Amino acid sequence: MPTARWTSADPRRDRAQPIAEALRERIAAGDLRPGDRLEESELGAAYTASRNSVREALDLLVADGLVERKRGVGTRVGTPKLGHGLDRLAGLGETLLEQGEVRNEALEARRLRRLPKDVAARLDQAPEDGGVRIRRLRSLQTEPLSLDVSYFPADVGASLLSADLAGTDVFELLEESLGTRLGSAQLVVHADVADAELATLLEIGVGDPVFRIDRLTRLPGGRPVDAEQLLVRADRIALEATIERDR
Amino acid sequence: MPTARWTSADPRRDRAQPIAEALRERIAAGDLRPGDRLEESELGAAYTASRNSVREALDLLVADGLVERKRGVGTRVGTPKLGHGLDRLAGLGETLLEQGEVRNEALEARRLRRLPKDVAARLDQAPEDGGVRIRRLRSLQTEPLSLDVSYFPADVGASLLSADLAGTDVFELLEESLGTRLGSAQLVVHADVADAELATLLEIGVGDPVFRIDRLTRLPGGRPVDAEQLLVRADRIALEATIERDR
Repeated sequence: MPTARWTSADPRRDRAQPIAEALRERIAAGDLRPGDRLEESELGAAYTASRNSVREALDLLVADGLVERKRGVGTRVGTPKLGHGLDRLAGLGETLLEQGEVRNEALEARRLRRLPKDVAARLDQAPEDGGVRIRRLRSLQTEPLSLDVSYFPADVGASLLSADLAGTDVFELLEESLGTRLGSAQLVVHADVADAELATLLEIGVGDPVFRIDRLTRLPGGRPVDAEQLLVRADRIALEATIERDR
Repeated sequence: MPTARWTSADPRRDRAQPIAEALRERIAAGDLRPGDRLEESELGAAYTASRNSVREALDLLVADGLVERKRGVGTRVGTPKLGHGLDRLAGLGETLLEQGEVRNEALEARRLRRLPKDVAARLDQAPEDGGVRIRRLRSLQTEPLSLDVSYFPADVGASLLSADLAGTDVFELLEESLGTRLGSAQLVVHADVADAELATLLEIGVGDPVFRIDRLTRLPGGRPVDAEQLLVRADRIALEATIERDR
């Protein structure tokens, strides 16, 4: 055990910190791997520490996201979050492709005779212009990660209705059918908690944290072509950005 | 009431949508203002609708963030979220200054003989180099919005210990004492829920959603000078960004 002195004035935390540190190193070294069980009694014996100290150490690692506690499952080494970059406009699918096989299950893909008023306003359309709505559940391997609800103007969305939504990212499909790269997107990121319906779809608990991302994507000329709401599991995805002080 | 037809196949939602729309317009027009109570019975009478339809309409507005429901308080018009831009590196205080009076309460500002190992690594320091830790509670008017825990290398942080932390943004203080503008920052944004301690500090409920933002700020030459964790109320702050498809 390292003999580090800690600056905290909390003696319980002082005993927990070196244990947390040792576990952090074992996780970093791959000696403990995602999914491995962490038993308080075993760890207490291994580090000659009280069960309270071990629990406190595990609390620290839970706070860091390195360890997960689930009711009925116990305490395990966590699966590292996937980073979704906010620096460059990429579909979530494009980002995840680097991590493994992405599945897009199209829950709905249909023409709407009328767009919801707020969606129409975002798309510079009148509600009665209609449009296309696509709801997709995105999974990495077999783990669902996000529910994406996208609205498109009628002329833009038409080609998507017959497209391979399961195998191809919508951004790619749009660029192919429009014959141009997409331009930019405005994002508004909210943190929220899952209600029962979303929790079931994403296989998380009711009340678990999710990102709710409103994304409006435009063509290089400025025309809005894709108004989306992404509901993203926050236990598996973190959003990343590098930003400059002066632009 | 508008005579819009709705494309949903859900008849309850079909009855709720026009009521939601009408309320949305009254909120947008300022006829209904943040904090105003929304009574199901009154609204039912006003829109000749059942209590179920009104409740469903309010659900839609809650989902949009326009309306808030709190146990013991009832249903009220919500306060719009503040947008914190992710495009440009700005202190939260700088962003909020446009919205009203920002208060920074320094809960802690002290020299550490030893930095936590993970913080030291982020700051390119050895733990035994020590540093400075500052914990601040940021409020707009009297409403707490975020808890910021910042670590600085010893030489960078020293000047902050005697600075006016209540009245000035730390980025400004750093730039003044370092004699240079800050360069860039790496952000990792998590969505999380508040534990009891954070809930008390931020005056929200246990389990309410918060952003947890890990931000590492560097000088233009690349030296990391400020490793922060921002815990931000997600009911009051949304994060905004504009991103490009090609850079």
